[in-house]
Amino acid sequence: MQTIEWDPVRSCAVLIDQRKLPGIVEFLCCYHYPEIVKAISNMTVRGAPAIGVAAAFGMALAVQDVERGGQEAVLAALEEAGRALVQARPTAVNLVWAVNRMLKAAADQMGNLAELRQYILNEALAMAREDVETNRRMAEIGAQLIEDGDTILHHCNTGSLATVDWGTALGVIRMAHAQGKRIHVLVDETRPRLQGSRLTAWELDQYGIPYDIICDGAAGYYLRAGRVQKVFHGADRVAANGDLANKVGTYMLDLAAKTSGVPVYPVFPCSTVDLTIHSGDEIEIEERDPAEVLGLQFEGERVAPENATALNPAFDITPHELITAWVTDLGIVHAPFEENFLSIQQKDH
Amino acid sequence: MQTIEWDPVRSCAVLIDQRKLPGIVEFLCCYHYPEIVKAISNMTVRGAPAIGVAAAFGMALAVQDVERGGQEAVLAALEEAGRALVQARPTAVNLVWAVNRMLKAAADQMGNLAELRQYILNEALAMAREDVETNRRMAEIGAQLIEDGDTILHHCNTGSLATVDWGTALGVIRMAHAQGKRIHVLVDETRPRLQGSRLTAWELDQYGIPYDIICDGAAGYYLRAGRVQKVFHGADRVAANGDLANKVGTYMLDLAAKTSGVPVYPVFPCSTVDLTIHSGDEIEIEERDPAEVLGLQFEGERVAPENATALNPAFDITPHELITAWVTDLGIVHAPFEENFLSIQQKDH
Repeated sequence: MQTIEWDPVRSCAVLIDQRKLPGIVEFLCCYHYPEIVKAISNMTVRGAPAIGVAAAFGMALAVQDVERGGQEAVLAALEEAGRALVQARPTAVNLVWAVNRMLKAAADQMGNLAELRQYILNEALAMAREDVETNRRMAEIGAQLIEDGDTILHHCNTGSLATVDWGTALGVIRMAHAQGKRIHVLVDETRPRLQGSRLTAWELDQYGIPYDIICDGAAGYYLRAGRVQKVFHGADRVAANGDLANKVGTYMLDLAAKTSGVPVYPVFPCSTVDLTIHSGDEIEIEERDPAEVLGLQFEGERVAPENATALNPAFDITPHELITAWVTDLGIVHAPFEENFLSIQQKDH
Repeated sequence: MQTIEWDPVRSCAVLIDQRKLPGIVEFLCCYHYPEIVKAISNMTVRGAPAIGVAAAFGMALAVQDVERGGQEAVLAALEEAGRALVQARPTAVNLVWAVNRMLKAAADQMGNLAELRQYILNEALAMAREDVETNRRMAEIGAQLIEDGDTILHHCNTGSLATVDWGTALGVIRMAHAQGKRIHVLVDETRPRLQGSRLTAWELDQYGIPYDIICDGAAGYYLRAGRVQKVFHGADRVAANGDLANKVGTYMLDLAAKTSGVPVYPVFPCSTVDLTIHSGDEIEIEERDPAEVLGLQFEGERVAPENATALNPAFDITPHELITAWVTDLGIVHAPFEENFLSIQQKDH
């Protein structure tokens, strides 16, 4: 089972409910696009590549619900759904990217309603397949950076669950392990939603890769002590100058790594690069419900006082000077990032 | 009620059980020194100054249990108890300092068993009183650094609960508030034991000081955004060169503050400085039970997979170059720390 699948019998998108893992493995069937919007916003599905593909299926569902009309009706439905999907989470560029790709596909295509429905669904299915291929390519490229015996520090979850399958940064780690390299992973628990302890640890268990969970604040201790060789994580949006938005806590991790001379490798597909944005300062940071910070229990007891307030930025910005190199599906990109990125894209065409 | 009190009727040390706050306010009476050792090691009582005074009462309890003999029997009992108390938690110097002070008091004093018992108890009571006075002095000195309108980032708990009363870094914040300065505190939740969300938020509630809890990993986001004017925290052991051990996560916080030009002020009594230790590299870092990291529940569900493993260093080292100035009971100390510290100590004598 993949993180997101299309069920052709019931005509619905099936998502694994990531809020309940690892305790409960449960699936959610979405029959209409507002269910996808909700699933993205409440983090039933999460991870920049995964929410991109979920949005593509949301667009396909919006077209399924068009009852009459031709291309115009389809485009109107797609525009309405696209607006809602993009607003579900503002930081990751993948939503915008997926929505725009589906809009473009619909605009370019002629046909009757049934043909358009099938065409749009095929486009979403293609995006899901491409996501897996892209991840495997990044994994092969990134695994070259990992040496036998490395201890790797990893933030948040970037595995199968953050994508359709395989994973970005965790995909690189899986590939290195599959190549027989002996590696150990320090898993940042990743407060507030604990994607590290809940999801990354669960995935590493399944792959048989040895790991230890650490509190986010302990990463600096291991970095300073020389006990980490590389830092790997994902990215939700990358600006032209190389600044990137990723799960909150990434900036402090990358800063500590840079200070200790440990290389930092964000892993993401080319679609995560947003050249319309010059620097990280322009990236909108999503503020989520303070309940995610306050809802914690420890030894059965609620932690924070009854009327406590909290702030909960979901992402932060790592400035480009802390980043050693990007690992993308087209290759490894060093600074100056924009220049070198444009050049590998040109070679690809 | 103070964090630690002596009950003269029942001849026991009374501790507030900090593991159960803020949900349950419960007190623990310790009648024999091994109960104090256990309370320090399982963090019923915590905070460097508080565990120092708890150890002093532990020493007094050890003498209460001596049934016959004179000074020699008392010294033997104190040495046995001292060894156990010092081993309860290795990082904070306050345990060693308190135990040594009690040993010296006993060695210097003549008298029969009843007189020695009373003398040793008086010494522990004096230490408890002095702790409150020292904290108030630090609060007055440190409050000068806080300006009207400041947002202050605070790590762990350094309030009344970390001391006998009043607090170190949080004492400074309380004093500034009492002086009428309008301040806002960003409270690092402080994983794994959540002293920030559990204890600091609870104390700030009682003092009427506005605050928001944030995840430890979010501190860098607010520092980079220019939304924090000062960082305050405590210290568990300070080396001669100014490096200091404090609650895990402090190093990454101080590094992010320094990078954003935000001043970092650790607040601690002179007894926290350990001139026998040259640099932070020589400070032993306590490794605690991984269950503290793994035992978390979120929305009623256990977080980490069943067989997950974790690492749990309780402290980390902040190198001296990240620290703006020490706030001590003898005054504010700037770099070069050892030289300036020796000079304010000389002036005091």
